[in-house]
Amino acid sequence: MGGNSVTVLSQLSAKAMKDFIIFIQDFNSFVIRTNTCGELRSAHVGQEVTLYGWIQYQRQGLFLVLRDFQGLTQIILPQDEAHSHVKKLLSNAPVESVVRVTGIVSSRPPGQENPKMPTGDIEVKAETAEILNSCKKLPFEIKDFIKKSEALRMQYRYLDLRSFQLQYNLRLRSHVVMRMREYLCNLHGFVDVETPTLFKRTPGGAKEFLVPSREVGKFYSLPQSPQQFKQLLMVGGLDRYFQVARCYRDEGSRPDRQPEFTQIDIEMSFVDQAGIQRLIEGLLQYCWPEERGPIMTPFPSMTYKEALADYGTDKPDTRFGMKIVDISDFLRRLDIQFVQNALSYPHGTVRAICIPQGVRYLKNKDLESLKESAKSKFNQEIMEIICRPDGSLKSLLTKFLGEKQQSELIQVLNMQVDDVVLLAAGEHKQVCSALGSLRLESADLLEAAGLVLRDPTAFHFLWVVDFPLFLPKEENPNELESAHHPFTAPHPSDTSLLYSDPTKARSQHYDLVLNGSEVGGGSIRIHSAEQQRFVLEKVLKEDSEVLSHLLEALEFGAPPHGGIALGLDRLISLIVDAPSIRDVIAFPKSFRGRDLMGNAPDYVTPEELEPYHIQVSWPLAERGKEKL
Amino acid sequence: MGGNSVTVLSQLSAKAMKDFIIFIQDFNSFVIRTNTCGELRSAHVGQEVTLYGWIQYQRQGLFLVLRDFQGLTQIILPQDEAHSHVKKLLSNAPVESVVRVTGIVSSRPPGQENPKMPTGDIEVKAETAEILNSCKKLPFEIKDFIKKSEALRMQYRYLDLRSFQLQYNLRLRSHVVMRMREYLCNLHGFVDVETPTLFKRTPGGAKEFLVPSREVGKFYSLPQSPQQFKQLLMVGGLDRYFQVARCYRDEGSRPDRQPEFTQIDIEMSFVDQAGIQRLIEGLLQYCWPEERGPIMTPFPSMTYKEALADYGTDKPDTRFGMKIVDISDFLRRLDIQFVQNALSYPHGTVRAICIPQGVRYLKNKDLESLKESAKSKFNQEIMEIICRPDGSLKSLLTKFLGEKQQSELIQVLNMQVDDVVLLAAGEHKQVCSALGSLRLESADLLEAAGLVLRDPTAFHFLWVVDFPLFLPKEENPNELESAHHPFTAPHPSDTSLLYSDPTKARSQHYDLVLNGSEVGGGSIRIHSAEQQRFVLEKVLKEDSEVLSHLLEALEFGAPPHGGIALGLDRLISLIVDAPSIRDVIAFPKSFRGRDLMGNAPDYVTPEELEPYHIQVSWPLAERGKEKL
Repeated sequence: MGGNSVTVLSQLSAKAMKDFIIFIQDFNSFVIRTNTCGELRSAHVGQEVTLYGWIQYQRQGLFLVLRDFQGLTQIILPQDEAHSHVKKLLSNAPVESVVRVTGIVSSRPPGQENPKMPTGDIEVKAETAEILNSCKKLPFEIKDFIKKSEALRMQYRYLDLRSFQLQYNLRLRSHVVMRMREYLCNLHGFVDVETPTLFKRTPGGAKEFLVPSREVGKFYSLPQSPQQFKQLLMVGGLDRYFQVARCYRDEGSRPDRQPEFTQIDIEMSFVDQAGIQRLIEGLLQYCWPEERGPIMTPFPSMTYKEALADYGTDKPDTRFGMKIVDISDFLRRLDIQFVQNALSYPHGTVRAICIPQGVRYLKNKDLESLKESAKSKFNQEIMEIICRPDGSLKSLLTKFLGEKQQSELIQVLNMQVDDVVLLAAGEHKQVCSALGSLRLESADLLEAAGLVLRDPTAFHFLWVVDFPLFLPKEENPNELESAHHPFTAPHPSDTSLLYSDPTKARSQHYDLVLNGSEVGGGSIRIHSAEQQRFVLEKVLKEDSEVLSHLLEALEFGAPPHGGIALGLDRLISLIVDAPSIRDVIAFPKSFRGRDLMGNAPDYVTPEELEPYHIQVSWPLAERGKEKL
Repeated sequence: MGGNSVTVLSQLSAKAMKDFIIFIQDFNSFVIRTNTCGELRSAHVGQEVTLYGWIQYQRQGLFLVLRDFQGLTQIILPQDEAHSHVKKLLSNAPVESVVRVTGIVSSRPPGQENPKMPTGDIEVKAETAEILNSCKKLPFEIKDFIKKSEALRMQYRYLDLRSFQLQYNLRLRSHVVMRMREYLCNLHGFVDVETPTLFKRTPGGAKEFLVPSREVGKFYSLPQSPQQFKQLLMVGGLDRYFQVARCYRDEGSRPDRQPEFTQIDIEMSFVDQAGIQRLIEGLLQYCWPEERGPIMTPFPSMTYKEALADYGTDKPDTRFGMKIVDISDFLRRLDIQFVQNALSYPHGTVRAICIPQGVRYLKNKDLESLKESAKSKFNQEIMEIICRPDGSLKSLLTKFLGEKQQSELIQVLNMQVDDVVLLAAGEHKQVCSALGSLRLESADLLEAAGLVLRDPTAFHFLWVVDFPLFLPKEENPNELESAHHPFTAPHPSDTSLLYSDPTKARSQHYDLVLNGSEVGGGSIRIHSAEQQRFVLEKVLKEDSEVLSHLLEALEFGAPPHGGIALGLDRLISLIVDAPSIRDVIAFPKSFRGRDLMGNAPDYVTPEELEPYHIQVSWPLAERGKEKL
């Protein structure tokens, strides 16, 4: 590995630069205010200041609280005759009006300091003031933590944006992305390249929005990611590319998905999986907000197989235990019909999770709902085992177990008094998936009942690796589809399997998981035209014609390359602990894909469709609604 | 103005930070190469290095030139028996194949140094090598300055991207944008906010692409700019917003326009015109590439009226003179029919430009083509006056002039021997526009003939201000339309004119012009709901319903605000002196809006249109082309 001395230097300097930059940010440049509303301290006492902001609160002509994006300042209204017009102006202005106030910074009278407010030691004695814009009656109060209907908040998004939480979320997002750019662009020589969003349909691009063109019958497509372009940039010798890329996905109505979203899109030449992983760990460490505590690198890594076996999912939440335990070997010895049945099949297994203190924290209806959930989502029967206060087990299973076997089972499952075990027998993937889902559901139930399992301030990053390259198609299990996308390279040890038994080949795909959510994914790509053609034509049986430009590009000296994309909306929502990605997007769409503020999408006239040579296929019942 | 000490500090620190960042960029992190191909110098002699790159050139099994994004390195092929396989491998690899070479850095033999090459003092003696991907026969040679057809270059864009010039353009673009972000975000507290691109049609949005939604008859629209959103962010108290925003404009086929383009989008609260101007001057000074020389601030400013009168355009190229001269007063005294005719009308004028050395540099056919151009583009007759070597004038005009009047005219026009004057009489705007256009056309002709008028290394920024707020509609001059957009605030001195005689009101719009190209434009916006409603309903007679969300937002305490947008593609193309904005975009569309590499837009099947409830209106002649 070369350039060691440089790397060390850049790590030192990164920290230095961070401090440096925070120091010099100037919020008052180019405007007439002298200070923001969050800035004044005892050191400013005696200064004349000019503040601009919104009236948050006003009391009996005595004082008001002025708010801007940086904080709150208490303004004292003048009570003398000479300033009566100032007092009148300010005490008559409705809440949320925008005003300018000029006055003198004073210490608050002893005992009236507010230690909870950063500006709580001072107040500003108003001398002149101006109402810049008055506010009419609000549809709701602008205070944090007041529950409003989300539809109303979305309709008046510009008012909701005045809340501390949304301001914080958007500023933190901007800050984190800026740090990412510094890391990629300034420290590691990445080039920020913008790629087109008006492109054409990719094979299987059923979720791509279409954009009619002026050429009759021809459509652009809004891509789901810059995947093809970033690979072509590598063929073009750009070496290190990144983009904060707007992506589009038309999934109809789905909760917590947005039709447009943003990913941190990265691609490098001459890199391997470990190289991309170290890059991302460094990136996240560099951009991580200080107030969220440090994160440790390298991140732990787990194979897809381990993740499925231990957590029943490819995105394990490793903040808590309750791992899936394999009790096949223990039960194999016993003559229990349903166990023997399950184990007789290929991939047959018996597994369980142990819910700590389940007897105390879960009600009977909780346990019932867990079992029903496994049945309805995974068609999986669940058997429960309870550890009584005297240490004995209560279960349908116990009649098959001797005393010694009961205590062996307790040991295998590491059960304590009052624990509840959920047991499932059947096909490996189904059993694990069902138990993985129950693990999360019971964690939610335990936490709702007051047992803290997952530290809300903890951030557990995890790499999941060694995914299968292909999966059987759901609609026809004899055909294969890409587990991720057709450009993913096979695992270096499995290259020959690609040609001999592609179902067994692992890929060089890697997912980045944070607290049980997938926040990124990427792969080393195929750079051989022959291999790419084999995958498309022989394995996936797809028409490679639509990708002919990419296949041809691989023939012209394409370098080995790989990359990753981080889901920015999801990542930021986890960092700020927001319940939805809508809380980290300035103007999100509703879960039906609507903009409730501006009313989009909307009807257009037939004349507006004419240049695009399209017409609406109105269902008979809808014809009346057509806007002419 | 507050925060002076901070501002001075941030200016000092900006320079320091620039140097600092350049110093630590590490191109070799996370990969196995030790160095890039542009990096090795005499100081590296004796080191073992590993390089990755493309074979640019190979000669007789003796040496080759390896290229990556950073430069070229000469590789010496081993000639001894023990390394014969390395020699064979490298000398058989086709040009543009990707290889790894490991070897020892050596000084070039005395006399063989290449001072034109940054790595020209050294060469690398190859010890091991690997062909990572072979290149098939190229459709054209990858060398700079070889003229290829642009269609071919666009089809093989990934090969064209390997050229020095495109690599330089894209890297410089990335670098400039990163500096802009540092300036806005890190130095001045701006928040980078992403706004939606799936929105709805704005009034008069005939150039907006439509995106069919899954709701029958309803369409999203791809906005031409984030204008509404940035204003709503100000209402939401974001205070300082910026975004490197993707914008869309469907203009059909237009040369040097792209259906998607990028603007640096900025908005601030509590700011005036001067504040935005100082911000932009500081921004450009901060991001300006050092190799293009310093730029001076503040930029000069000119009113729209002056620009039209002196340069015949609202985007004057001030790199050269040839300003328009008003000779109305001089000619008014004379009894010349066409002059008196022109001057008798309202806004009648007689004006001229003087082409220096026109007799020597322009051919007769050049002069004819200039006159024809004025006639065809502006319906404007042009009369020419030539200054003979003896100082006398040759023109149809001279018969009306005595000797004294001739020498007075020479003085008014500042004519020298061999100059050519082009004279136009008629309505002010038509005359000025025609002469402004002739000024640029004759400058092109003079330069083509060898007279350098415009220093190619000069960058002349100019603010054009005090535009009219409204213009008569072309199709119906009795109705008014916004000169820029309906959110532009009136000039502070003309607020009452808005209500009494809106045609006379000037606006607070400002354009930024660089070397005769518009590179930015913005305005202080209307923040009063009442004023905004008056403009929309009473002046523009538009249906304000589609903007009801914006009008309502202004009623809820909207702060005074203003902003600007810089056209990034145009700005970068001027900085790198590229003939087209296509040269600063990684994957541009052709002037017909097509992607020639991937073949977009393309046909889709009727099944793919079904979820969007649209069908293609095939003209009868096209039905055969439908892809089923």
